[in-house]
Amino acid sequence: MRRSILASALLLCTALPLQAATPTTIPDAALKTADTLRAQALADDTGWKVTESLTTEVGPRLAGSEADARAVAWAQAKFKELGFDKVWTEPVTFPKWERRSENAQVTGAHAQPLVVTALGGSAGGTVEAQIVRFPDLAALQAAPEGSLAGKIAFVDFQMQKKLDGGDYRYGGGIRGRGPSEAIKKGALGFLMRSAGTTPHRVVNTGITRYEAGLTPIPAAAVSIPDADQLARLVKLGPVTVKLALDCGWDGEATSYNVIGEITGRSKPKEIVLTGGHLDSWDLGTGAIDDAAGIGISMAAAHLVAKQRPARTIRVVAFANEEQGLYGGQAYAKAHAKEIKQHVIAAESDFGAGHIYAFDSNAADHAKGAIEAIAGALKPLDVAHKPGTGDPESDIGPMAQLGMTWAFLGHDGTNYFDLHHNADDTLDKIDPKDLAQNVAAYAVFLYLASEAKGDFGSTPKAAPAKPGH
Amino acid sequence: MRRSILASALLLCTALPLQAATPTTIPDAALKTADTLRAQALADDTGWKVTESLTTEVGPRLAGSEADARAVAWAQAKFKELGFDKVWTEPVTFPKWERRSENAQVTGAHAQPLVVTALGGSAGGTVEAQIVRFPDLAALQAAPEGSLAGKIAFVDFQMQKKLDGGDYRYGGGIRGRGPSEAIKKGALGFLMRSAGTTPHRVVNTGITRYEAGLTPIPAAAVSIPDADQLARLVKLGPVTVKLALDCGWDGEATSYNVIGEITGRSKPKEIVLTGGHLDSWDLGTGAIDDAAGIGISMAAAHLVAKQRPARTIRVVAFANEEQGLYGGQAYAKAHAKEIKQHVIAAESDFGAGHIYAFDSNAADHAKGAIEAIAGALKPLDVAHKPGTGDPESDIGPMAQLGMTWAFLGHDGTNYFDLHHNADDTLDKIDPKDLAQNVAAYAVFLYLASEAKGDFGSTPKAAPAKPGH
Repeated sequence: MRRSILASALLLCTALPLQAATPTTIPDAALKTADTLRAQALADDTGWKVTESLTTEVGPRLAGSEADARAVAWAQAKFKELGFDKVWTEPVTFPKWERRSENAQVTGAHAQPLVVTALGGSAGGTVEAQIVRFPDLAALQAAPEGSLAGKIAFVDFQMQKKLDGGDYRYGGGIRGRGPSEAIKKGALGFLMRSAGTTPHRVVNTGITRYEAGLTPIPAAAVSIPDADQLARLVKLGPVTVKLALDCGWDGEATSYNVIGEITGRSKPKEIVLTGGHLDSWDLGTGAIDDAAGIGISMAAAHLVAKQRPARTIRVVAFANEEQGLYGGQAYAKAHAKEIKQHVIAAESDFGAGHIYAFDSNAADHAKGAIEAIAGALKPLDVAHKPGTGDPESDIGPMAQLGMTWAFLGHDGTNYFDLHHNADDTLDKIDPKDLAQNVAAYAVFLYLASEAKGDFGSTPKAAPAKPGH
Repeated sequence: MRRSILASALLLCTALPLQAATPTTIPDAALKTADTLRAQALADDTGWKVTESLTTEVGPRLAGSEADARAVAWAQAKFKELGFDKVWTEPVTFPKWERRSENAQVTGAHAQPLVVTALGGSAGGTVEAQIVRFPDLAALQAAPEGSLAGKIAFVDFQMQKKLDGGDYRYGGGIRGRGPSEAIKKGALGFLMRSAGTTPHRVVNTGITRYEAGLTPIPAAAVSIPDADQLARLVKLGPVTVKLALDCGWDGEATSYNVIGEITGRSKPKEIVLTGGHLDSWDLGTGAIDDAAGIGISMAAAHLVAKQRPARTIRVVAFANEEQGLYGGQAYAKAHAKEIKQHVIAAESDFGAGHIYAFDSNAADHAKGAIEAIAGALKPLDVAHKPGTGDPESDIGPMAQLGMTWAFLGHDGTNYFDLHHNADDTLDKIDPKDLAQNVAAYAVFLYLASEAKGDFGSTPKAAPAKPGH
């Protein structure tokens, strides 16, 4: 999940006056080693094996669940098995949400079941009411006050496939803000067309939030074929839906950021940070979201370790990204005073599609080094695309504190076929793409660790609450 | 669902000695009209509208359910709306099976939910036991007696995509016979890899039967990604699964074959029969199985009506095909004495893929007419493929009594991506393919109605119980 390009530009601009003038460079010897590393990574299946292991042995791992605790133990064991020099955990506490059961059906003359899933964070409850269809969030927002009294709002917006997954701003926006908008208009329940692009009968969940002061209503998504069906039925006359969700918040849970380090040979206190998030939604096995990120970052660091990198490579398996970047925020809170030590960071949390773009908000004096890294990524068919990237989800809070980030952009064309739905399983990952991802991360991590000079990480003012 | 090529050959051979010698022909004027009809059909959307109407307004329509009764009313109304001359129903009684709830999970160290569905006809019940994996039905059959005591059998056979859907003989065979084989070995429960070809988390149901004298056990299919997951887990060590099915038989139900006729202008008592089945499984909306067959046959007859065909065109929307050809058998019982009047029949019950093949078991004296019909189908990219076809499901019982059949073979490459699972929804049908299907049926029905002479329908000995 990305913040806007504007926000990134601002981060870049405000960082400029603070940078030193000595240009950061990448030694030629390191670039040669990167060639070796790239070839090794493309022929290596560590990334696949790690991803397979997490998705198979743990499976779905909703934050705060029993499986989430198993995932934490799994990550510690896996770091050790892969020979990381240091492995530890840092606690992350958050409200616990549970999905118990969910179903919905059209009632009346065209009675039939619907394939639905509760949005994460939804209130439980059973409502039966006429649906009112809106083509998008703006239409719902434009509905007169009170016009949905006794009704269920149905926002029927279809995301389109995009290389950068850009339509998620609309689909994710409906999921996040739709329920609150529906409550404001008086609705008893909220339904939305799945924030995804799959024509199959699986439904994309994901967190929603009710604005303070509103009384939460049951909020769910329907699969795309079911949304098509509702849209056809609405054309025939009034449609009544019964939505029954048994889910809700249940106290607090504590999980853990699991951290593994390859200690740097000459600058052990300087950190090149990477990772992914360990938790997943509960419907699939969290393969592209984000076992792949865990697999890519663990495997890349593992391969880099064999080259004995100058700086420390730190891999963080972040806790509870899905419900509000809790792991990323806890990490930023715990390490707020170590911004300068975090030389640069890149997280993988956008699946396992081919990495096609590289970008960074590195300071001007490090542009040459960034270009050298981009050059080393080029044989992997990764283009240098300044201005296109953002820090991924969990490193966002540290980036807001001034940590320099890099962006390795995955092809997201098919990402929302799988994102947060039951189809997010291992078989959807192409092992060749995953190996390319590992190679790109290995090259980046190694060269960043070998760079002579920094990338501009500099403490800034306290962060605004990040979006997610 | 097809019987074997051998069975068809036998039907053909036994019919031969009974045929008259006068060659059946297709008048040139009829062939010219067929050209017009073909073009009209390709530009017509009646087939789509009928299919859309049934799948949308009725949705899933499990035999004996409230929705099945609505489907019967829908079919009567639709025949009338399309201007059929006669519309009536004929009762079909059968045991009623219901699915109420179903779930399964791996328990123990790798605990995680599984996406399952009860096989149609399964007993309800909850079992928790170690699974024993078999690569196919033969391996299960070869297991020693009693070797599955206290275990759940898991048959992990993957169907491959085939133009003629031929792998269904294996997948369907496991579904039909697997549970009984498992019981004989002492198993408490039965699981199978979905008899399908989709990589998505939807599961193909379908009828199973327990052999007489065996005590039924819960029997379910898992989605293909879940089967992959179980196969990986089994490699790691013993895997325990908890399978909870609430489903079962509940008395008898009566539904109806719904029949619409276009009365022939000169031979009203001679019937060219077509149709599809009205019932569906409950997971999807029965779009390719078999709203498409209903849409194709209704639309084709409707178009042919405008040409005032010589013989009567009868369209049957058969009841309860899915649980044992009950509608087809009831029709054969009710019309057993009218074999000669049923000049020829073709049913559409293999989806809405492009029709690529034409075949018939017509008597020798009608081969010229069959070739003429094949010639009229050629512009639709339909090839004459003698010996490749079979009578479709519901006309099988009449064919066994001696009714001549024709075969219009749909491309079944992707059929088992959708067959009996939740993905069998309207959006999976290509309107262009459906129009081609309607055109092929319209050409066939019209030319068969205009043929000078018969196709060899002749009463035979009483039928063996048909397979399904």
